[in-house]
Amino acid sequence: RTLRAGKLTERVLKLFIATGKDEVFSLIQALNIQVTVTPVLPTRALRPDLTSFMNEWRTIFSRFHLIIVKDPDLKEELKIPEGFNLDVYKKPDIDRVVGTSTSTIFSGYSCRYFGYLVSRKKYIISVDDDCYPAKDNKGILVDAVAQHITNLTTPATPFFFNTLYDPFTEGADFVRGYPFSLRSGVQCALSCGLWLNLADYDAPTQALKPEERNSRYVDAVLTVPARTLMPISGINIAFNREVIGPALLPSLRLGGEGKFRWETMEDIWSGMCVKVVCDHLGLGVKTGMPYVWRNDRGDAIASLRKEWEGVKLMEEVVPFFQSVRLSREATTTEDCVAEVANVVKEQLGTKDPMFARAAKAMLDWVKLWKSVGSSTSSPGA
Amino acid sequence: RTLRAGKLTERVLKLFIATGKDEVFSLIQALNIQVTVTPVLPTRALRPDLTSFMNEWRTIFSRFHLIIVKDPDLKEELKIPEGFNLDVYKKPDIDRVVGTSTSTIFSGYSCRYFGYLVSRKKYIISVDDDCYPAKDNKGILVDAVAQHITNLTTPATPFFFNTLYDPFTEGADFVRGYPFSLRSGVQCALSCGLWLNLADYDAPTQALKPEERNSRYVDAVLTVPARTLMPISGINIAFNREVIGPALLPSLRLGGEGKFRWETMEDIWSGMCVKVVCDHLGLGVKTGMPYVWRNDRGDAIASLRKEWEGVKLMEEVVPFFQSVRLSREATTTEDCVAEVANVVKEQLGTKDPMFARAAKAMLDWVKLWKSVGSSTSSPGA
Repeated sequence: RTLRAGKLTERVLKLFIATGKDEVFSLIQALNIQVTVTPVLPTRALRPDLTSFMNEWRTIFSRFHLIIVKDPDLKEELKIPEGFNLDVYKKPDIDRVVGTSTSTIFSGYSCRYFGYLVSRKKYIISVDDDCYPAKDNKGILVDAVAQHITNLTTPATPFFFNTLYDPFTEGADFVRGYPFSLRSGVQCALSCGLWLNLADYDAPTQALKPEERNSRYVDAVLTVPARTLMPISGINIAFNREVIGPALLPSLRLGGEGKFRWETMEDIWSGMCVKVVCDHLGLGVKTGMPYVWRNDRGDAIASLRKEWEGVKLMEEVVPFFQSVRLSREATTTEDCVAEVANVVKEQLGTKDPMFARAAKAMLDWVKLWKSVGSSTSSPGA
Repeated sequence: RTLRAGKLTERVLKLFIATGKDEVFSLIQALNIQVTVTPVLPTRALRPDLTSFMNEWRTIFSRFHLIIVKDPDLKEELKIPEGFNLDVYKKPDIDRVVGTSTSTIFSGYSCRYFGYLVSRKKYIISVDDDCYPAKDNKGILVDAVAQHITNLTTPATPFFFNTLYDPFTEGADFVRGYPFSLRSGVQCALSCGLWLNLADYDAPTQALKPEERNSRYVDAVLTVPARTLMPISGINIAFNREVIGPALLPSLRLGGEGKFRWETMEDIWSGMCVKVVCDHLGLGVKTGMPYVWRNDRGDAIASLRKEWEGVKLMEEVVPFFQSVRLSREATTTEDCVAEVANVVKEQLGTKDPMFARAAKAMLDWVKLWKSVGSSTSSPGA
């Protein structure tokens, strides 16, 4: 009865996980799929047609309620096949919820954040629309949703590195020398998946190695250690919205930002912010499986010709985020984001107006989340 | 001609690596194999017989000069098959080199350190004698030596985590958002390999899961981030003796230490020391491939019945090593080890005489290394 009501407590959930009944909890876990639609040639003519994307994912996605957010810049109508339980949010919906002046923050790849904002589910999974389900080493289709949920519902171990990777994976454990007091781990807030075929490279790397494809399926999940930063890609991620939701935010927009993934940095910036917040709040971030199969598109050489700020940007941003320390008073994700925003403004804002704008966007986001994002969220739902 | 003389410069070596001529540099790389012989039942009767061990490794080990160190506690004669180029060091050899009063530090698993001390090669690879070559995902025999050498001769990236693992692996690169200034990486000093079949668990875990075997072949190498500690196992490791040699040392001996791997902590302690030194000197530590196939032996339940200090030990040791910061004056590995030893003495020495003894052993080791270990070592040899 508890299950039918969708009211699974943390305790019962753990019990299910302990017994390995993946199907049971997969059915119950709330889930959102956010699809990013990028209105850019050469795929522009095809992009609004989600038929093949949705059909490839059908066996996995049809079990869940989906949120599809249409890039407000995209003019064509979306084409979505039948047989899914979903809500589609378009520009008028976005305008209605956040107002026309705010809705611009959701253009391009950033449209995903509108889905994060309006969802009321505990777990969010976000997969870009150029990604198809991958196959594992044995040729078996990967259920990316199930793997992300496993990552999020088993503990993370950020304070000491386990050489055999995720000790909560079946058949694995903590190796000799791992302190017992650290073996219970901490709550996992974010799960970063990876990509087969087209890896998530920047434009220079992509231009240098146009033929390179990632064919290495690494059968592992691991916790990124505390105080270690990484480039978090938004292409294939999942997170616990209740604990870390407000830290995934649209804020950094490059001057010459285009509509190719390698021309954007919004997810990398947001990822640095999430990691710093997780470290401060004692939450974990995992990386590794699940993989998605990412399809080639776009001309990296053309992107390179633009003056792209992404390269020099990280030289400032990484040392900055490595040095950020939040105060004891910052006990919620909203507090933490606001503190990070203030330090961004103070330390980076004078270097480049782009950073000052990002800081303002972060503060605006916290307000927006409080008014729109956090209502009627029920624990454990 | 340079090659025949065994005088490969760093620059030429890099050239060889860049061209992918593994065989060329494998032939030139100096290599030592240290075999640990543990005189303990139930394998005591069999242990001195290295026939099957050496034959399994023949195709790999026969290309190199080997050092075999016989545990001074082992009474039986070693049985070693023909066809290898090796030096065997026994108790009288050890006594002659370091004196009878010092030779006790090399008993049991610690006999490996004698091999590290007397070698004059740049790279050392050490594999325990209960390990056989593993097969990869495709059933192909893993050349553990070649993989370790690749790990040590390509840069490590400890300051920012690359989500696609080792960017220097073939077919991999740095992902979008990785700062370009950090892409050249740092020198890798230590490569920690893993184990298939019997994983390196402690006695409680081993006792709890006597049937568990590690069958997960994770096709990855990664740099352990700076300031992240890990339990470094001595079972299957390789290191650059010239840069980090003196930090691999026999010093911590548990009161109730037995002759099973899970009853010892010497390698874990030494590993914490190495990692702290590498972090201070800006050197890298990698973990992951190569795997070795580790064979079952021993009765973990019997080990558990002893009062084993390893469990509570790490609760003190991990926070201690996490807090150690070395001074700017410590610019060599010897300096660093001596500084760590002094802090151990100061902060842990009063808690347990075992730590005071470890501190003294570390200082003694630095002296021993200076007098015995560092002579006639030629750069690049």
